[in-house]
Amino acid sequence: MTTGNLLIAQGGGPTAVINQSLVGAVLEARRFPAIHHVYGARFGVRGIVDENFVDLGQESRHNLEQVAATPGSALGSTRDKPDDNYCSNIFKVLKQYNIRWFCYIGGNDSSDTLNIVSEFARRANYDLTAIHIPKTIDNDLMENDHTPGFPSAARFVASAMAGVDLDNRALPGVYVAVIMGRHAGFLTAATAMARRHPDDGPHLIYLPERNFHEQQFLTDVKQVYDRLGRCVIAVSEGIHDANDQPIVTQLQQQVERDAHGNVQLSGTGALADLLTNLIKTKLGLKRVRGDTLGYLQRSFAGVVSTVDQSEAREVGEKAVQFALYQGESGSVTINRVGNYLVDYRLVPLSQVAGKTRTMPTEFIASSGADVTAAFRHYLAPLLGEPLAVTARLRAPTVSRVG
Amino acid sequence: MTTGNLLIAQGGGPTAVINQSLVGAVLEARRFPAIHHVYGARFGVRGIVDENFVDLGQESRHNLEQVAATPGSALGSTRDKPDDNYCSNIFKVLKQYNIRWFCYIGGNDSSDTLNIVSEFARRANYDLTAIHIPKTIDNDLMENDHTPGFPSAARFVASAMAGVDLDNRALPGVYVAVIMGRHAGFLTAATAMARRHPDDGPHLIYLPERNFHEQQFLTDVKQVYDRLGRCVIAVSEGIHDANDQPIVTQLQQQVERDAHGNVQLSGTGALADLLTNLIKTKLGLKRVRGDTLGYLQRSFAGVVSTVDQSEAREVGEKAVQFALYQGESGSVTINRVGNYLVDYRLVPLSQVAGKTRTMPTEFIASSGADVTAAFRHYLAPLLGEPLAVTARLRAPTVSRVG
Repeated sequence: MTTGNLLIAQGGGPTAVINQSLVGAVLEARRFPAIHHVYGARFGVRGIVDENFVDLGQESRHNLEQVAATPGSALGSTRDKPDDNYCSNIFKVLKQYNIRWFCYIGGNDSSDTLNIVSEFARRANYDLTAIHIPKTIDNDLMENDHTPGFPSAARFVASAMAGVDLDNRALPGVYVAVIMGRHAGFLTAATAMARRHPDDGPHLIYLPERNFHEQQFLTDVKQVYDRLGRCVIAVSEGIHDANDQPIVTQLQQQVERDAHGNVQLSGTGALADLLTNLIKTKLGLKRVRGDTLGYLQRSFAGVVSTVDQSEAREVGEKAVQFALYQGESGSVTINRVGNYLVDYRLVPLSQVAGKTRTMPTEFIASSGADVTAAFRHYLAPLLGEPLAVTARLRAPTVSRVG
Repeated sequence: MTTGNLLIAQGGGPTAVINQSLVGAVLEARRFPAIHHVYGARFGVRGIVDENFVDLGQESRHNLEQVAATPGSALGSTRDKPDDNYCSNIFKVLKQYNIRWFCYIGGNDSSDTLNIVSEFARRANYDLTAIHIPKTIDNDLMENDHTPGFPSAARFVASAMAGVDLDNRALPGVYVAVIMGRHAGFLTAATAMARRHPDDGPHLIYLPERNFHEQQFLTDVKQVYDRLGRCVIAVSEGIHDANDQPIVTQLQQQVERDAHGNVQLSGTGALADLLTNLIKTKLGLKRVRGDTLGYLQRSFAGVVSTVDQSEAREVGEKAVQFALYQGESGSVTINRVGNYLVDYRLVPLSQVAGKTRTMPTEFIASSGADVTAAFRHYLAPLLGEPLAVTARLRAPTVSRVG
């Protein structure tokens, strides 16, 4: 029987519930006598090659529960995307520290890293079980009904949109909200959950799954504005033209790219400003406002889906159970098996690694500027407790005296 | 004894609790037989001159309670700033509809409007009681310890900042958050409530009460970054240079002004982008991100201070009680009389009308880039329930094998 140490790390963008998965895995791992130490790597894979480890056996249960309820990645994260050489260094350190189980919480890049590392272990005949624990607010992992982090981010953007729509009703105009999501529009689509009354916003929703046409956009906005005297719009940061060029690059002279070669989309208000200026100049409308929801979407302290919370905890627990009882590398996936009910399965890392899932066609309205009832049906049970109430006065109009 | 109708309206920017004040006043007004009808004007004073009224007597208590819990201005609002002629038209309509009590929920502009209208009534020997119900997330009304709407907005920005600080700890860099507040820095200052650990952000806070010096700003940022390897900054949208020029105008070619002659600050990411570019180019730092918290600050559905909620309700109720029992025009004010305890007093409209309260010196750190313990002591009881937990791992570092 294998004995040794377990290592856990967190990669990519933090979420509101990523620490639930961390704590789920840590508490579960501490149950197994075969696991001598439960180590955490600081700042993702970077902390492995730097040998920057903490001993998570020496944590009180109370503090772990407090950390679980805290947004952000408690171990620290990284944007490093390890190549073969980097992965070889990771493997060397794992061996040196007698790591026999390696759990990495992250998106499809993290799954890819695990895949390469476990291949090094296999070739070296070193007994290593590498488990990917899913996490991403983008909801873009293959083989998953949805991914931990997405429901809480969805709850945040739906609540935000419900509020700004009420604000816009009180002081009518055009409002553009830019939502995170480079290739997958799930989070932008989630703004549709803000609607309660038939004329509630968002009235238009633009996703990266469809090409963005400036002229069609302006026509859409004008149509809504003419009908309602106002227009609330949700736009994915990743919207692009027919040549796959991000709309935001039309403005920026200097484009910032990350280690993955991706254009920087978050942390700037450029896209919202570009679209509001377009509406002002081309449609001649006044009171056109734009907000970029930014990092609040994945980090806001205090807005969380209770469903997301418990599922994030469970994928962490299941990762350790799969690792210890099955001894096979793989990626933990969430599968919907009832209404509403999930179970967790381990799939080969290669089925998740480096792949991106986008919104299926049946979730996108044929207009290309809205979502379908099928999408709302899909998302509704994930949001947890009912959203805050958004009621309107129903008092009758007073007859004119004059 | 005076009998007739009561009119209520909402002005200026909506808040998370402005409908509590509306409902507090409406339910209270419906108790008095002297009041024949309780009317609401749609879209503020604009709805008065347009004679666009609803009959709030014909609302169920349940729906009113639902509306009370809803952010935004349920009656609709306006940015109109009535001049003498406009006020004369308001007065004519009030007379025509036999309005004897006029309650206007708003900021110092609304108080000013009421002051002018009540002067018209006095000169015409028309019996009118005009009551200003305070509301503003800016917390900038004279004679008030604080104003309804501010505590909920403060809770929002503190929660947001706690989250983005955790995000920044996980993926270190520089982060700039731009917060609402043209002349008064209270809301930006409220981000300080996000701090729990001694090195939690925001590490720097810039208020409109102090001149903003680019060179000092860069020095401050560099100092924090050198010490912590990261830096989280909160900046008021209203920061200005020594000549009182808003920093944001340094970027914008075309400056948009509202009816009050104010430069448009919200609804654009320009200031955050300007500051992040400054840090990137002048300090050569990477991963510099900026978010403009925007309209979410005053409208987010589901984040509210319970203290704010009940106080907003009470100022509405008290407005009607002052109007009916004292029969004198005035502005309802919140006074702190214990720790923590408030009472409500009616002061002459002229003491609030058109005046702006800013952060007192004892609330601003001598560095000019932080708040004091006195400010945190002032704000703490207003935030309601404890903020969401933000815990850190305390696990010891593992000794290196190599």
